[in-house]
Amino acid sequence: MAHIDLGIDEKQFPGITGPMRYRPETAKPLNELAEVLLRAPHSLSAGERELIAAYVSGRNECNFCCASHSAFAAAQLDEGYDLVDQVRADLDTAPISAKLRALLRIAGAVQVSGRHVTSDLVADARAAGATDLEIHDTVLIAAAFCMYNRYVDGLGTFAPAGRDAYAESARRVIELGYGAAIRVPEAEPAD
Amino acid sequence: MAHIDLGIDEKQFPGITGPMRYRPETAKPLNELAEVLLRAPHSLSAGERELIAAYVSGRNECNFCCASHSAFAAAQLDEGYDLVDQVRADLDTAPISAKLRALLRIAGAVQVSGRHVTSDLVADARAAGATDLEIHDTVLIAAAFCMYNRYVDGLGTFAPAGRDAYAESARRVIELGYGAAIRVPEAEPAD
Repeated sequence: MAHIDLGIDEKQFPGITGPMRYRPETAKPLNELAEVLLRAPHSLSAGERELIAAYVSGRNECNFCCASHSAFAAAQLDEGYDLVDQVRADLDTAPISAKLRALLRIAGAVQVSGRHVTSDLVADARAAGATDLEIHDTVLIAAAFCMYNRYVDGLGTFAPAGRDAYAESARRVIELGYGAAIRVPEAEPAD
Repeated sequence: MAHIDLGIDEKQFPGITGPMRYRPETAKPLNELAEVLLRAPHSLSAGERELIAAYVSGRNECNFCCASHSAFAAAQLDEGYDLVDQVRADLDTAPISAKLRALLRIAGAVQVSGRHVTSDLVADARAAGATDLEIHDTVLIAAAFCMYNRYVDGLGTFAPAGRDAYAESARRVIELGYGAAIRVPEAEPAD
């Protein structure tokens, strides 16, 4: 049971989708931010950016966000869940590029605190070929998931168990984008 | 020196204003979220909501955000900086309503992890008169500042020292709102 009455069936609208229906005024910028960071044209693929989101969400122990973005990453990476699982299990040995590994290390630092991002971590990413924009967006993706994760768990929302439960939302996000996928009503007031 | 080249004079555009000029595509939803959460009409005053933002930013040791939102809170609370200082120094004894204290305790839990928000904390807030919307927005304000703080510090931005440096931005935010106050150019591309 969520901590507040979201006015929805939690099984039908799990995780962030309940609070987003409850408060469309905040759902709008939250979805726009996810859309720009994770799906807009970029030198990092959508799968790579979703992998950063899944990695941070796992470190924050946010079951709903980690399962969701693991599904979104797996659906957009050639290696599917295998790579997501390897990155989450051991970043040092996962079969990814030096650049993506360095960016994920920055994301891991941000997950603890912005103050944990060191000049060395940034220099390593740059030496592996990361651009300033890629470093910027990695920091903001990691920071943003420190928000989404706390929003989802701070309200005590429901997270379905098992990967199958996230396959349909992966299809919707990839086909329609974040705003459409979570089905926020246009004119439904909060409270 | 920021970790990436933001293309600005950091003294002129300190803290979040540099990254927001660098990346207007993400600045737009970031500002819209702050505007809805902190300034839109609400049963919590703008000063109370800015106090939540300052409190969380202080706990995240984000000097720029804490100084900024302390200034924005002080400028909109009758008690000014005195109350901001008391809340930040000792929440248990600060002269605030039972409802605001209970909401700040929820915000403090969110700052650690969404999973630290307990049914008891929520019940205490409700017993003190908090509505579901106030609890929702408190969770999201606290979560959002766990993002803004990490964004500002994860990029190693500059934070001016002293309260005087934040007085002008307080005037601008109160008069013009978040979008206008940080002076993000409309059509300046990133990278």
